[in-house]
Amino acid sequence: MGARLDLKPMLKPRSVAIVGASRDPDKVGHVILQNYLNAGFPGRLYPVNKTADKILGLKAYASVLDIKERLDLVVIAVPAPAVPAVMEECGKAGVKAAVVVSGGFAEVGNADLQAQLVSIADRYGIATLGPNCLGVMDPRSRVDTLFLPTYKLSKPQIGGVSFMAQSGAVGSTVLDLISGEGFGLSKFISYGNAAQVDEVDILDYLADDPETNVIVMYIEGIKRGREFIAAAKRAGAIKPVIVLKAGKTAAGVKAAHSHTAALAGDYEVQESIFRQAGFIIADDLSDLLYYAKIFEAEPEPKGPRVAIVTNGGGAGVLTTDALGASGILSMAEFTRQTSEALRKAMPPLVNIANPLDLAGDAGEERYDKALAALESDANVDMIIVIMLFQTPGADSASAAKLIAYKDRSEKPMIVISIGAGYTEMHKRMMESAGLPVYDSPADAAAALAALYRYSLFRKRRSQPSR
Amino acid sequence: MGARLDLKPMLKPRSVAIVGASRDPDKVGHVILQNYLNAGFPGRLYPVNKTADKILGLKAYASVLDIKERLDLVVIAVPAPAVPAVMEECGKAGVKAAVVVSGGFAEVGNADLQAQLVSIADRYGIATLGPNCLGVMDPRSRVDTLFLPTYKLSKPQIGGVSFMAQSGAVGSTVLDLISGEGFGLSKFISYGNAAQVDEVDILDYLADDPETNVIVMYIEGIKRGREFIAAAKRAGAIKPVIVLKAGKTAAGVKAAHSHTAALAGDYEVQESIFRQAGFIIADDLSDLLYYAKIFEAEPEPKGPRVAIVTNGGGAGVLTTDALGASGILSMAEFTRQTSEALRKAMPPLVNIANPLDLAGDAGEERYDKALAALESDANVDMIIVIMLFQTPGADSASAAKLIAYKDRSEKPMIVISIGAGYTEMHKRMMESAGLPVYDSPADAAAALAALYRYSLFRKRRSQPSR
Repeated sequence: MGARLDLKPMLKPRSVAIVGASRDPDKVGHVILQNYLNAGFPGRLYPVNKTADKILGLKAYASVLDIKERLDLVVIAVPAPAVPAVMEECGKAGVKAAVVVSGGFAEVGNADLQAQLVSIADRYGIATLGPNCLGVMDPRSRVDTLFLPTYKLSKPQIGGVSFMAQSGAVGSTVLDLISGEGFGLSKFISYGNAAQVDEVDILDYLADDPETNVIVMYIEGIKRGREFIAAAKRAGAIKPVIVLKAGKTAAGVKAAHSHTAALAGDYEVQESIFRQAGFIIADDLSDLLYYAKIFEAEPEPKGPRVAIVTNGGGAGVLTTDALGASGILSMAEFTRQTSEALRKAMPPLVNIANPLDLAGDAGEERYDKALAALESDANVDMIIVIMLFQTPGADSASAAKLIAYKDRSEKPMIVISIGAGYTEMHKRMMESAGLPVYDSPADAAAALAALYRYSLFRKRRSQPSR
Repeated sequence: MGARLDLKPMLKPRSVAIVGASRDPDKVGHVILQNYLNAGFPGRLYPVNKTADKILGLKAYASVLDIKERLDLVVIAVPAPAVPAVMEECGKAGVKAAVVVSGGFAEVGNADLQAQLVSIADRYGIATLGPNCLGVMDPRSRVDTLFLPTYKLSKPQIGGVSFMAQSGAVGSTVLDLISGEGFGLSKFISYGNAAQVDEVDILDYLADDPETNVIVMYIEGIKRGREFIAAAKRAGAIKPVIVLKAGKTAAGVKAAHSHTAALAGDYEVQESIFRQAGFIIADDLSDLLYYAKIFEAEPEPKGPRVAIVTNGGGAGVLTTDALGASGILSMAEFTRQTSEALRKAMPPLVNIANPLDLAGDAGEERYDKALAALESDANVDMIIVIMLFQTPGADSASAAKLIAYKDRSEKPMIVISIGAGYTEMHKRMMESAGLPVYDSPADAAAALAALYRYSLFRKRRSQPSR
């Protein structure tokens, strides 16, 4: 394993130059500079352009060599054939990191040009992301090299989930989805052709990053197998890593090869690497979000026993089925004390059982009493609250009660709410308060099962026998 | 099998009386009357209330016996103990159908009261829905007995999907979800305790209903097994039936029993009944929608071969994986003619293969040429178009191109678009034009697989050997 590439100058730069910055609003270099200005980047910003004097109010430089300070990061957005010369200048100027957003390298058959780029980066020790990538975003340092129109792509708030993706399109799609969720972003890293910096370097960095609580990765191929295994084991032992691998079936492997020339390899082998590292394996893009939000928000469960509280009997049955299908979770049996307390607190029509069906007219009061009883029940490890907002009793007061309860609970608790406008409104309300909301019993059960499975992995790892 | 109960007077009534109609806006009877008025119900409407002279501007009657015409439908929203007397009056007045929304019968242990209700209904031949149900909605006849606040529950447009659900909460939740989809509703039937009219009667009616193209059913228990099998076989042979059964696992069966006192029974047996009837089996509430929209919009595929067109390589790989996982669909191999036409039409960076990756800058022109080539390719049975709106090329013009193409295509075609605001806007645009849009490769593949599987079932049935 070679010397580790330091990604800090790329993600936390004090100074950034944008090569290819332009006065033409249609140029990528213009969009990137504008994004830095809009984000209020607090460091020093240098547009580099051979002909312009000033761009967007900033003094422009003909070359990075003309800039007086040693730069942390250079973003390169010039046509592919011009990139090696720019990299050479970066090397001479002592630049620490580069993000090459330009396409036109190995992905269109120009492997030689890409090799030239890597050789310069290695010679000068420049940590280089790309080429052919969207680059990086870090809402804390306000670094943002994305060149997509902001109206197409909502950007997430600050948080603890870091997302790495080889593919720019998948990366931007997931970033857009994250913006609609309650959790926030720590780092976004789209690494494209992975000519130099690859999944191993990124995984290593994110494993140690104190701002990252959860790592989410979308990968198509793994180049350095042995190093990847080491990085995966290390990362998985430190924090939850959620992975979606494209190219699982024979046809998918073929398609992946044609897409990024990545050797997708044998998925069964890869899956066993992921499992040994304790990774949470996603089957679809939406799973990435369902898993990310529970790991970002919830504590470790003490056991597999789940209590369900609902205002819709049918939804309670479906959720019971989904928990059973998980193969690892079980239905909690309430202690006698809990059953007696519930019997006293609830109207006669409420049958004291798990799922606990509070009936369609249940409002904040019944939810409050039910949750108080379950919180103190030692037989209950996790709680699913189903709140269907189409029923007569559920409203913002009931949602607020769940939020208040969440703040003092020590058990993992998630919500299932399904529906259109009125429900969406309350979903946003609860998620913005850090309460994960799911719109399907199956997704909710899968998320809780992943949380419990990872807690078992952590426990096994901390056994003295290892 | 007894005489079939005629549900027509319930769903297409020319005259409706609402017993329990009230001037008090908090009463269920008031909400129902108001809903009929808001919906512009074109038939004759009679509030029934012992004390009021006028309610919401309509003359009120003390009893259905005071109404001069023979009523098609009576909606009953009075306390449970008062229901038998009202039913007795309905019988004497020659009422054809009743919807009993009142709760307080078998579901809270009052089995005797429920038996009394059924005995009166049977004696007078009144087709009776409920008790303890939300009742019916038919946007064509403007019948609407739902008593939930309209701000909590969006109502769908007119269409060809009929939805039957025992559970009121699940029913209203799915109804709310349907309102956010592109397809419309034919009938909504929430049948509660199923004391008299049950899933067999409803399935029989919907199978013959010319306004129903697709039947969606959520069930917890089946009471009349033999009759259900006959009705299922008949319905499945006429039109697609999508079913979600709650109570599959041991714990789920127990929970279902406690919810509606339904005998959920052995799910394996039930599943084999569904399969033999050609039903499409859903695993989750969201599946009901994914399946409903493809069956409502798409023609029968001629075979299992799918072409994928995408502007995101990674999403193409994930979709290829999902098709492989379906176990029944395959990737189409383009004819030489198609490959040559595409090679000429596309820029060099587009690799001519399936999935066809048009690249991130693809706009309406590239999609147009790709779809024209695939439409005429005899090796392509179905088309998945992936349009990621975060990319630089995709916009409303590209979405409009898909809609225009959809109108002239004879092959099933669905879209995958994933993302927040800008994507949601275009999703609504395409769905309102009848183009099904999915936000996950797995859901899209599952929907196409169901469409193809049902086409095979139909073909087997039409073989002379049967």
